[in-house]
Amino acid sequence: MRTLLVIGTGLIGTSVALAARRAGVAVFLADRDVAAARVAEALGAGLAEPPRRPVDLALVAVPPAQVGPVLRDAQANRAAHSYTDVAGVKGQPERDVLRLASDPASYVGGHPMAGRERSGPLAATADLFAGKTWVLTPNERTGAAALERATTLAEICGAAPVRLDSRAHDTVVALTSHVPHLMASLTAARLLHGPAATEALVGQGVRDVTRIAAGDPALWTDIVRSNAPAVAAVLRGVRDDLTRLLAATDILAGHHPGGRAQAEHTVTDLLERGVAGAARTRPPAGAPEGFAVLRVVLDGRPGSLARLLEAVAAHGGSARRAGAAPGPDAALAVDVELPAAGADAAAAALAAAGWAVSRPGLASAARRGPHR
Amino acid sequence: MRTLLVIGTGLIGTSVALAARRAGVAVFLADRDVAAARVAEALGAGLAEPPRRPVDLALVAVPPAQVGPVLRDAQANRAAHSYTDVAGVKGQPERDVLRLASDPASYVGGHPMAGRERSGPLAATADLFAGKTWVLTPNERTGAAALERATTLAEICGAAPVRLDSRAHDTVVALTSHVPHLMASLTAARLLHGPAATEALVGQGVRDVTRIAAGDPALWTDIVRSNAPAVAAVLRGVRDDLTRLLAATDILAGHHPGGRAQAEHTVTDLLERGVAGAARTRPPAGAPEGFAVLRVVLDGRPGSLARLLEAVAAHGGSARRAGAAPGPDAALAVDVELPAAGADAAAAALAAAGWAVSRPGLASAARRGPHR
Repeated sequence: MRTLLVIGTGLIGTSVALAARRAGVAVFLADRDVAAARVAEALGAGLAEPPRRPVDLALVAVPPAQVGPVLRDAQANRAAHSYTDVAGVKGQPERDVLRLASDPASYVGGHPMAGRERSGPLAATADLFAGKTWVLTPNERTGAAALERATTLAEICGAAPVRLDSRAHDTVVALTSHVPHLMASLTAARLLHGPAATEALVGQGVRDVTRIAAGDPALWTDIVRSNAPAVAAVLRGVRDDLTRLLAATDILAGHHPGGRAQAEHTVTDLLERGVAGAARTRPPAGAPEGFAVLRVVLDGRPGSLARLLEAVAAHGGSARRAGAAPGPDAALAVDVELPAAGADAAAAALAAAGWAVSRPGLASAARRGPHR
Repeated sequence: MRTLLVIGTGLIGTSVALAARRAGVAVFLADRDVAAARVAEALGAGLAEPPRRPVDLALVAVPPAQVGPVLRDAQANRAAHSYTDVAGVKGQPERDVLRLASDPASYVGGHPMAGRERSGPLAATADLFAGKTWVLTPNERTGAAALERATTLAEICGAAPVRLDSRAHDTVVALTSHVPHLMASLTAARLLHGPAATEALVGQGVRDVTRIAAGDPALWTDIVRSNAPAVAAVLRGVRDDLTRLLAATDILAGHHPGGRAQAEHTVTDLLERGVAGAARTRPPAGAPEGFAVLRVVLDGRPGSLARLLEAVAAHGGSARRAGAAPGPDAALAVDVELPAAGADAAAAALAAAGWAVSRPGLASAARRGPHR
């Protein structure tokens, strides 16, 4: 790709432009707010002027409801060979494009999954998309050229392109973005009713849960409206869970008769599903093969564990669990986890310093080979 | 305070013991799991043996439902002159103590507002409470000695003691801790229903909202049960907001007839209350008096803003907004914010480097005095 037109030089458009410039692409910048395009130009994101010939790709970086009309106008001006957008919902822009555009085959929907607390071109950075997912939503009319160019743009920005149909995209972002935002708002709105001491009792937990609730209400109203069917479907599931939870807490509070055991089960069931769901938001746990476990028996002196942890930390390890060692004297034993590569050296060093070190669970392995 | 008995050597009890040891207090450690007390001793948190004479203060660091019975037993053994606890709810332990304890005046409820992802004595640290709030909940029977000793212990741990009655405490923690946890669980539980692409579309937002949902379900069931009245009251408010929100999204999705404008207003109203509520979770904004604003007019060359931002950053400043400057030539102007103490030097340096620098809004002030 050699030429790019960015229509809409906000945070996302300007950041893409900066990344494309860095990769040597000739970038043209347009915004209905002329000053915004000039700010992007002054940041080195490209030229704030119309291209003389059709560019390879036009990036339509405008709000969801504007994608269809802006694309129609750009195609009427023969601005580009291919088109993509960056809207956070994909169903409505796709339907608008299929209805309005003269050449729907030249368009593929896109959604780079990145953002910042600040908006506008002054917050833009060429690294905004590095390592992030960039969803592309081809439909049955999308041409190969549009898909290929949009994929190339995502890669130029350092993002990982992922293909989904627009309906699946909208369902997933309702789950992973729109409903979490509304849940943060619902939680934060309650805090308005707290007494004066509320601020003193705020911890990191509620701060995390409500952080995204600080987002711009007008922007988020737009987002909820554009993805209302998927959002409503997810909220209905939340409402059903909440109804059961509220009935259970009413019973536990003694407000209503009912089985307390069943009520507790309802609460625990929700909490357990929460643990399982939260696990989907975290990267898979690091390979445990990379670590080795040593068991160290402590002498009885106060503070001996503190000294051991210091020695283990010097080898990059940490304590995993502690408990009474089996045997008649029932000394205290601690299992420590260390990077496997350095475990032999660490075991030797600890033993030399007087600690009683062994490898739990390796007795049978020792019988099979020369290694202890 | 010279002597402390910690009953329950989990994360909180052991951390308090470590902080007290560091302050020179003689600490005794007890746990119904003898190995846990020995681990705490091996960490240097004190001696895992009963005190020979009553200690100044006993810290009962056990689950909420155990506080009353454990305190009753400790008083029967004349373990201490004063008692406090660390349970995250305060109404139920207070009622239990008033009902069970032989000397309720020697007890004051306490709740240090700190925790970690990990639990157990191996996660303990003397700095766990540094800078955190430590709530104390005296009731009408609480004696001055108990309140004074518990206050001293909080201060020894580096925490800020805050007095609240137990009912206000429980209302506030329902708002700031228990309901946020349940909201995180409700959000995370929905993720179990997402398609395979869900993981790829997870961003920092949903990760933050659901982080605390990973907490131990058994522990959190206990917490919800012990504070069920306050939790139910807050959840009822959430349920009412959610019912209105769901009706609005159903209208926006076209599922139900109704006024779309009113539905959008309902969504925006919730989002705006969320913004206001989230503000209560953040420390007050830094004093704006500490910053000065300079207005810099750019030349028309691409990349000039990037060069300016680099120069401004070298003086500890950042761009606040950019737009067309007033005047017939409509050059681009950027307002940059700098630490006030260095603003004069920065303005001089920028001017010397060829930038056109002025101070917006200072024209009238300039007329009043010698400063520009």
